[in-house]
Amino acid sequence: MEIEVFTTLNGIPDEAINNKTIIVIDVLRATTTITTALAAGCLEVIPVLTPEEAIEMRQRLEDERVLLGGERNALKIPGFDLGNSPQEYTPQVVAGKRLIITTTNGTRAIRRAAGGRQVLLGAMSNGPAVARVAAAGAADITIICSGTRDHFSLEDFLTAGLLVEELGTQGEYTLRDGARVARDYFRLHRQNPGAAMMESYHGRLLVSLGLGDDVDYCSRVGTAAVVPVYNGGIIKQLG
Amino acid sequence: MEIEVFTTLNGIPDEAINNKTIIVIDVLRATTTITTALAAGCLEVIPVLTPEEAIEMRQRLEDERVLLGGERNALKIPGFDLGNSPQEYTPQVVAGKRLIITTTNGTRAIRRAAGGRQVLLGAMSNGPAVARVAAAGAADITIICSGTRDHFSLEDFLTAGLLVEELGTQGEYTLRDGARVARDYFRLHRQNPGAAMMESYHGRLLVSLGLGDDVDYCSRVGTAAVVPVYNGGIIKQLG
Repeated sequence: MEIEVFTTLNGIPDEAINNKTIIVIDVLRATTTITTALAAGCLEVIPVLTPEEAIEMRQRLEDERVLLGGERNALKIPGFDLGNSPQEYTPQVVAGKRLIITTTNGTRAIRRAAGGRQVLLGAMSNGPAVARVAAAGAADITIICSGTRDHFSLEDFLTAGLLVEELGTQGEYTLRDGARVARDYFRLHRQNPGAAMMESYHGRLLVSLGLGDDVDYCSRVGTAAVVPVYNGGIIKQLG
Repeated sequence: MEIEVFTTLNGIPDEAINNKTIIVIDVLRATTTITTALAAGCLEVIPVLTPEEAIEMRQRLEDERVLLGGERNALKIPGFDLGNSPQEYTPQVVAGKRLIITTTNGTRAIRRAAGGRQVLLGAMSNGPAVARVAAAGAADITIICSGTRDHFSLEDFLTAGLLVEELGTQGEYTLRDGARVARDYFRLHRQNPGAAMMESYHGRLLVSLGLGDDVDYCSRVGTAAVVPVYNGGIIKQLG
């Protein structure tokens, strides 16, 4: 079996999606936030591309339990219930709720992954748990870094490296080049992944907006056992 | 000024090409071979996508000085004068000649770069020289790794890291995430880039074909002062 990592969602060949186990990463902050929300008892998460789509979806669902979450340029959208800070997604706020979340890069990556045999959402927080589930699938694994507007994202690549490292403890894999480099990059920073994330473009942006706590939160490894699975447009906790 | 690295040629946004200095890397072996050929006195190199296109181009040029070079699946193409081993491109063979070279990944990447203000070809061999020329251009720099059939190539990313490192000695640059990670990856392997390249997918393929010498050759840093420039479909030595 093989592991490959793509650094953005562009131009991923279909052969790297079809029949593969896919892990989508948008660690700052979509996949961390979704993991936190599900761990806090949120029933399901519907990822959409735009705020308009989110509002339309809420009208269509006609369900009082629906919350809207998401960000534009890292900030909460006017009229939404929640931003994209994982720490807002507490049990008090999201337990028993359905969440519509709008995020550009993460949603695009999740939709690109839709042809995979299983589509999991990965973050630092649930990396070890996601690796266990992915390994149990006994298929080739494609890890998709969402990136930032078609650009390489350090933080997603670092998280991909954690996943490759964890997968290596679960089974025998051939590493394609992207997976090998990501793993080596993670090893370089394993003592302090948070410091590496703070150096990233997105990390520095969040710090400049007073959201450094979120970067710190999103860099912690193994704090969640939840594995979000995407299927038919909806993300739910596995099992 | 800014440096960004793209790990494949897919989905690079136009804003990362237009008005930028572009450095295209296909270190195993196209950009190394082209650099070696120009250093050996080859007049110009015309990159094309397919062997058929190469043969047509030779007929159209009606010039006895034309040689055909290139590979398919790492091996020389029947009827061609040369393969893609840089060590074939000696002064005895290529001095005073025009070379049509067919290479899939490298040619696609060079053509994608065509909108840049200056398009340079980089390799380990000419990395320091290319960095000096690129820095003198005083523009943002986009480094394009050709990759292997839409996949991440370790060897191109490692070479991108060398270029970022060398550029850092030439001026003040803001590093986008791809550039930062590539530089850190190069630093991890700077004592022995050849060993890292041997671990790559393409490196192992070449070794398995008895072409390990080429990998070693292509991993040597700073052995050439030639800077190939692409303009209007033709690659020539700068100046």
